[in-house]
Amino acid sequence: MGSIVAKNRKHLVLATGRSHPELASAVAAEIGTDLMDVDSRTFANGEIYARFQGSVRGSDAFIMQSYCRPVNEWLMEQLIMVDALKRASAKRITVVMPYYPYSRQDKKGRGREPISARLVADLFKKAGADRIMSIDIHAAQIQGFFDGPFDHLFAMPVLLEHFKHTVDPETLTVVSPDMGRVRVADVWSDKLGAPLAIIHKRRDPLVPNQVSVHEIVGKVEGRTCLLVDDMIDTGRTIVKAAEALKANGATNVIVAATHAIFSEPASEILNSEVIDKVVVTDTLPLGEDQRFEKLEVLSIAPLLARAITEVFEDGSVTSLFDGAA
Amino acid sequence: MGSIVAKNRKHLVLATGRSHPELASAVAAEIGTDLMDVDSRTFANGEIYARFQGSVRGSDAFIMQSYCRPVNEWLMEQLIMVDALKRASAKRITVVMPYYPYSRQDKKGRGREPISARLVADLFKKAGADRIMSIDIHAAQIQGFFDGPFDHLFAMPVLLEHFKHTVDPETLTVVSPDMGRVRVADVWSDKLGAPLAIIHKRRDPLVPNQVSVHEIVGKVEGRTCLLVDDMIDTGRTIVKAAEALKANGATNVIVAATHAIFSEPASEILNSEVIDKVVVTDTLPLGEDQRFEKLEVLSIAPLLARAITEVFEDGSVTSLFDGAA
Amino acid sequence: MGSIVAKNRKHLVLATGRSHPELASAVAAEIGTDLMDVDSRTFANGEIYARFQGSVRGSDAFIMQSYCRPVNEWLMEQLIMVDALKRASAKRITVVMPYYPYSRQDKKGRGREPISARLVADLFKKAGADRIMSIDIHAAQIQGFFDGPFDHLFAMPVLLEHFKHTVDPETLTVVSPDMGRVRVADVWSDKLGAPLAIIHKRRDPLVPNQVSVHEIVGKVEGRTCLLVDDMIDTGRTIVKAAEALKANGATNVIVAATHAIFSEPASEILNSEVIDKVVVTDTLPLGEDQRFEKLEVLSIAPLLARAITEVFEDGSVTSLFDGAA
Amino acid sequence: MGSIVAKNRKHLVLATGRSHPELASAVAAEIGTDLMDVDSRTFANGEIYARFQGSVRGSDAFIMQSYCRPVNEWLMEQLIMVDALKRASAKRITVVMPYYPYSRQDKKGRGREPISARLVADLFKKAGADRIMSIDIHAAQIQGFFDGPFDHLFAMPVLLEHFKHTVDPETLTVVSPDMGRVRVADVWSDKLGAPLAIIHKRRDPLVPNQVSVHEIVGKVEGRTCLLVDDMIDTGRTIVKAAEALKANGATNVIVAATHAIFSEPASEILNSEVIDKVVVTDTLPLGEDQRFEKLEVLSIAPLLARAITEVFEDGSVTSLFDGAA
Amino acid sequence: MGSIVAKNRKHLVLATGRSHPELASAVAAEIGTDLMDVDSRTFANGEIYARFQGSVRGSDAFIMQSYCRPVNEWLMEQLIMVDALKRASAKRITVVMPYYPYSRQDKKGRGREPISARLVADLFKKAGADRIMSIDIHAAQIQGFFDGPFDHLFAMPVLLEHFKHTVDPETLTVVSPDMGRVRVADVWSDKLGAPLAIIHKRRDPLVPNQVSVHEIVGKVEGRTCLLVDDMIDTGRTIVKAAEALKANGATNVIVAATHAIFSEPASEILNSEVIDKVVVTDTLPLGEDQRFEKLEVLSIAPLLARAITEVFEDGSVTSLFDGAA
Amino acid sequence: MGSIVAKNRKHLVLATGRSHPELASAVAAEIGTDLMDVDSRTFANGEIYARFQGSVRGSDAFIMQSYCRPVNEWLMEQLIMVDALKRASAKRITVVMPYYPYSRQDKKGRGREPISARLVADLFKKAGADRIMSIDIHAAQIQGFFDGPFDHLFAMPVLLEHFKHTVDPETLTVVSPDMGRVRVADVWSDKLGAPLAIIHKRRDPLVPNQVSVHEIVGKVEGRTCLLVDDMIDTGRTIVKAAEALKANGATNVIVAATHAIFSEPASEILNSEVIDKVVVTDTLPLGEDQRFEKLEVLSIAPLLARAITEVFEDGSVTSLFDGAA
Repeated sequence: MGSIVAKNRKHLVLATGRSHPELASAVAAEIGTDLMDVDSRTFANGEIYARFQGSVRGSDAFIMQSYCRPVNEWLMEQLIMVDALKRASAKRITVVMPYYPYSRQDKKGRGREPISARLVADLFKKAGADRIMSIDIHAAQIQGFFDGPFDHLFAMPVLLEHFKHTVDPETLTVVSPDMGRVRVADVWSDKLGAPLAIIHKRRDPLVPNQVSVHEIVGKVEGRTCLLVDDMIDTGRTIVKAAEALKANGATNVIVAATHAIFSEPASEILNSEVIDKVVVTDTLPLGEDQRFEKLEVLSIAPLLARAITEVFEDGSVTSLFDGAA
Repeated sequence: MGSIVAKNRKHLVLATGRSHPELASAVAAEIGTDLMDVDSRTFANGEIYARFQGSVRGSDAFIMQSYCRPVNEWLMEQLIMVDALKRASAKRITVVMPYYPYSRQDKKGRGREPISARLVADLFKKAGADRIMSIDIHAAQIQGFFDGPFDHLFAMPVLLEHFKHTVDPETLTVVSPDMGRVRVADVWSDKLGAPLAIIHKRRDPLVPNQVSVHEIVGKVEGRTCLLVDDMIDTGRTIVKAAEALKANGATNVIVAATHAIFSEPASEILNSEVIDKVVVTDTLPLGEDQRFEKLEVLSIAPLLARAITEVFEDGSVTSLFDGAA
Repeated sequence: MGSIVAKNRKHLVLATGRSHPELASAVAAEIGTDLMDVDSRTFANGEIYARFQGSVRGSDAFIMQSYCRPVNEWLMEQLIMVDALKRASAKRITVVMPYYPYSRQDKKGRGREPISARLVADLFKKAGADRIMSIDIHAAQIQGFFDGPFDHLFAMPVLLEHFKHTVDPETLTVVSPDMGRVRVADVWSDKLGAPLAIIHKRRDPLVPNQVSVHEIVGKVEGRTCLLVDDMIDTGRTIVKAAEALKANGATNVIVAATHAIFSEPASEILNSEVIDKVVVTDTLPLGEDQRFEKLEVLSIAPLLARAITEVFEDGSVTSLFDGAA
Repeated sequence: MGSIVAKNRKHLVLATGRSHPELASAVAAEIGTDLMDVDSRTFANGEIYARFQGSVRGSDAFIMQSYCRPVNEWLMEQLIMVDALKRASAKRITVVMPYYPYSRQDKKGRGREPISARLVADLFKKAGADRIMSIDIHAAQIQGFFDGPFDHLFAMPVLLEHFKHTVDPETLTVVSPDMGRVRVADVWSDKLGAPLAIIHKRRDPLVPNQVSVHEIVGKVEGRTCLLVDDMIDTGRTIVKAAEALKANGATNVIVAATHAIFSEPASEILNSEVIDKVVVTDTLPLGEDQRFEKLEVLSIAPLLARAITEVFEDGSVTSLFDGAA
Repeated sequence: MGSIVAKNRKHLVLATGRSHPELASAVAAEIGTDLMDVDSRTFANGEIYARFQGSVRGSDAFIMQSYCRPVNEWLMEQLIMVDALKRASAKRITVVMPYYPYSRQDKKGRGREPISARLVADLFKKAGADRIMSIDIHAAQIQGFFDGPFDHLFAMPVLLEHFKHTVDPETLTVVSPDMGRVRVADVWSDKLGAPLAIIHKRRDPLVPNQVSVHEIVGKVEGRTCLLVDDMIDTGRTIVKAAEALKANGATNVIVAATHAIFSEPASEILNSEVIDKVVVTDTLPLGEDQRFEKLEVLSIAPLLARAITEVFEDGSVTSLFDGAA
Repeated sequence: MGSIVAKNRKHLVLATGRSHPELASAVAAEIGTDLMDVDSRTFANGEIYARFQGSVRGSDAFIMQSYCRPVNEWLMEQLIMVDALKRASAKRITVVMPYYPYSRQDKKGRGREPISARLVADLFKKAGADRIMSIDIHAAQIQGFFDGPFDHLFAMPVLLEHFKHTVDPETLTVVSPDMGRVRVADVWSDKLGAPLAIIHKRRDPLVPNQVSVHEIVGKVEGRTCLLVDDMIDTGRTIVKAAEALKANGATNVIVAATHAIFSEPASEILNSEVIDKVVVTDTLPLGEDQRFEKLEVLSIAPLLARAITEVFEDGSVTSLFDGAA
């Protein structure tokens, strides 16, 4: 008899909730592995069940979920999956949420409001998550809501690559749809070598209590305008911005955003004649009925695959995780 | 100048999620107070928002939610409400869930399964809940899943009261629909002074691997049979039991249960000719399309109102919280 | 100079409290390793001291303890051992308790009772335990009391193997001693290809408030009856069941149970003429004075050894951990 | 003999660290109570000691500290005070930090950075703080860093009140010193009935990689410009903004800010001829050498006193805690 | 309808484990209340059960337990009582342990040892204890092991009061039995106006590795020597000290200690002719067989009663809780 | 496609705060690695920033900090570094504090005092530290303040080695400066084969309330006296001890201590003619102005390097971690 010693190997487990299996499959293909089978079901009474079909003991597990509608179903599903992994002795559990749900409720604007973005972080921590991976969160402070590592990825390189081959920088102007996005637009303008313009929605400064107007700072006349934002929800803001740009003489208006939430009636609205093209990523699934001719969807899978591989191998490609803006 | 001293008063705040406002209103009326207004909304992208409209500082708050479909929406809504209360300085937060969601996933039947009932308890604890109040939980061990006080109420007295006035004990037999419910049925039989019968679904003991049969233990021929259970989900189990009873000569079959989950197609199935009456409580809401002539719904509001008042006043009506079975 | 890198090896540490060293030695022998020496002592004033005699830094440690009398001494000893391991930098600590103590106090039957089975889980978590391994826990929900992985093993295969070679299935009937154990007995009946009978202790259904009788469902006359249960404490229940079987014409009565608690006067009672054989495992130690001729004790060590090896190597023999019932 | 019952009274304890005793005294005077004596000392080796001189058992304690230099000394002092209160059985401990330290390190701008603002919240939680009260935090998301109630107060009404009596709205323009403060300035503009202007520091949009220029959006020529910000640290940003305003024809430039950090050489720089007046509050202490003729310091004590009283009495003056912007 | 408001009353619940009911009764009598009935039992298999017989909702509960043999039984009993109180909604739970168990295992003297005194504090915290009350703990640092208020009482005034009336200070010398107790003996010497002597057990300083000798510092010849210590366990140390004192000419030797652990064979040993009197308190129970003529037991009940009353009423009699040494 | 498996390597990261970079460099050199670059800064307003310049993902990180003045700055810096490591996915974080700060505030001497040494342990735990490594802590119980492994090292071997080559044991006497240090001095006396003496500061035993005198137990006349202590703060105690020794005929007085806190005016005082030599280690930095001719500083780096290497490699050199006293 004697002492028993074993090498400490770790294996990667990649699995997904039911919200966006296409993205998860694409990520698995990029990494060169298979998605772990999960028996996921919703019972007649609305409760969700999930069971991993293969061994997860000692694994480095990454669970993907895309937070499209119905958000709360997918939240509970991913929480249940984390619980199952924890109880099945996964060594490390990373929650991959390309779009962070409830990210816009990140503070108390008024008394007696929740801070749901913090709640989400706490729920996953309690369920057993060791880390979170997300892309282009609405406010960078949300990283601080999670008590542990938070890998914040940036989709801009993916979008930029696309535009470098499809637009002429000579005629291009990068446009921020409002004051809150100026810093991001500024980086785009730098990277593309194109000038910057800003749309300012506000009350007329000289006439108090007047309704807001869309003032444009910077030259847009005769230019191809690239409107950049982190997400498109109903699309109303972006269409109003596009209208203002066209009204001010813009030749073309292209919209670029990471997260295509596309709540009703986004697809209808965005298919407006004031918008010439919409470029988004597939962090969220888009049904056939949500797509339209002017829409181009870029794959975020290579970015996620690279990040997951880095985390699994304890690598350090800083360009992935360092901020673009 | 001098020292500042204040009497420590506490006020009761009663509020509800959007799943079953009628029940909450009835409870408020029984207590003699008003429901606190809450601005609850679901945004276009599926995220929920909730804000309390009145002061909750230092309050003893009770938040009600009934876990009908869509279960996960209501779960997230109640969690968000608890978070808002915690951040608004409520002194004590009691989560009132007449029916405990995910109560049937209370153990790992196989490897790599979640224990969702424990997860639910942990999520509420993390969000800020100090205690849970629920009625007739599926397994009494679920009380132990919450790290804090758990007020477990029993609906049997409400149902018993009804039957004492509507059935003749001379011709009545209490029936347990399966082996797991025998202890509850036993108490009913005692309280009503009626004999007990049991339905045993199993393989034929002398022929292995044979499909299950519904064996009846006890005399049911010529009797009014009262089938008792904690919940009715799709209703399939209960209808099969009723068929067996009628096939064995039962004159009448009455079904009594606390929680009317009534997942599709429960209402249709239960409206069978083998069942003469179904008596449930309103722990869960029932739409007009889920009701049928043979169905009778008893109000659980007085029981909840009494329990909430007891907890608020630190009283001790043991009969409320002590087990019936 | 440069960077310092090391391979991450892990070594297994197996140690035991003082309640049942024979079982721990047998497990160590099965695994092919030695038990770590522990200096364990009880001082004159009743306090316990434990110190590990060899290195445990970075180890995957398994600490065994069997919860026979005095239960609370052994509880504190194992908690102290976990504390010592935590402070000595063990990497992972698994508490191996073949019989889970306080498992029958798993819910509040009445107000102001403890839920001691949850308390036990919490105490070990707080002391530093990462996981629990146990065999045939009284209620499967107890798995959910621990906030982490809980390896639930099943002794049935060990017992079944024995009976496959010692009884004739043609004359055998599996008997459940009460309603709560029917599901387990059902699986036995399947595996052995033998019919099932049930003993129902209850009030006479037609005569309220009558003392309980032992009604037998199923044919036992002229049969060898195998009474199966999870534990035998004082043995009174099982002897009464055996009496009823013999009174109903059973030829032989064999008792099979996992945990031989054998509280006084179990050994005396079980050595009754109505019982022909008692087969248990050695999850709990049995002194010479607790043994009797009709008693056969099967070794549980191979099962525990296999489970510990699987956990150490992050393997996945589902048949070990998946439920038998 | 019989049962012992007591009314639950609570008394307010108000105490302060050594960073800004004048503010604490003013708050105590406003409330009409005395500051609890605390024996606070720094030993020769740099360690801090603090002991409460009066009874704090069962109290509702509010501990004030202003985070001027040396920030880390004051942090440790307040943490030590919270620890002493916790161990002395204070019932509720509120940390009053008029200026929240480390609030600008509220996210990871790059990999391997800390999120110190979250760390500060966690340290106080761990030490025993039940709630935090602060004024005009740099990012509203910081509220979500604390796991409990966070009373966020707004100094704007205090500052507004001052300007309503000292400036002529007819000639006034409210100016935001950069894009990130536009929303606050917008509210000021509304409340004072004055138009809004914005200073945009950025690269020239048409010439990439050019150094930043201070572009002014809105009319400032011939106007009295009110520059509003949450804090003034070294003052460099604000002086550059004032220079740009004067260069664009502004008649007067008044600066308003809540937190006068005034790191070296702020006082010297702000005493520039391009600035006509600086109005701040006394959330942070200002030494005689940091004051200059153009500086006016408004007292924040009445606001804090009112908030503390409200919290103590569980009141709800929403206007105090609801956001101004 | 309207709002429901209640005065916040609190009632005191005093209960005890089974280790030392006489002390608890005496404390209750001093306070003028009754002990709450508790149904406490040890089952045949060694497990403990405890249920409170009266209402504890919202109460300020004090649970007493004296840690005599069998220490671990009493530990588990008190933990179970705390769990039951927590789940029954007691508002505050104070663990009263006149003698703190495992207080001598308060550090790692060697590698791979537990720190059992910290473990005990953690177990009670986890079970639900809000505070601990104890008397004369072995090392004052143990207060810091509990994450919450720790009321440390001092028995010296009780013992001093006795000696003021029974010994002549003119002929008295206070003696410390070893170096570690000098500070306590110093205070006694001060309070009684008597000189101090010290017994130093050590190797002969001039002869390395020699066995220890009992060197006496201070004059004891012809004096009445009062040996003071915090506890007497087996009594061997104290008897050796007494022998050395007598050998050096002491006229009388009186022993005073707070905790009479009296492990076998303490009573026999202490009844030596070198000891003239032993004075202890009743923090721990003493059976008839442990008592002897020279032993005098003082009641600690008045001190405990006063402390419990102070804590219940949030009073502040500093002399009770401030250190004597 | 297939499964992805990786070997689990770990790499050592060694970094330091800014308090004592020389010690950290020496430790790195001993280990044979480089210090990880950290961008550490203190902003104008007093806040500290720290960012790791190289990859720390999956690393076994050791962060050093020496707690000289300003203690609280260095505390916050190390806490911030731990936070950054946690968020950057370091696998294990060891806080190396050669001198444990606030170690003398390890208990409540009086009511309403903090226990700052416990607070320090809690703050590091909360920030994310997995373990603490320290040398010669003031009270061994402080190990129990941290909820996790605490590596307690002993400097005595380093100091002993020095004296074995520099003093003649024939003429040497080891002296404890007070009663609290006798046990340590006893071990020195053993190891050096030299006799022991003790200095007892106390009131004259025969004259109550007299000021303390320095009584010397043991022979010091004509001897070389080696005064041993754990730390020297202002040096006043040690100089008074030296004076007493010289007054009693000591030929030489040598002082040996681990931690040279040297608060003002230690260097001046220690450079007294009654002291012939002072030998300390470099656990704390000493500026040129704090050094004097009689002072000899031994390097603690080899000890720390060996301990860090042991911990990294999960080794077990017990002599390093086991207590010397």
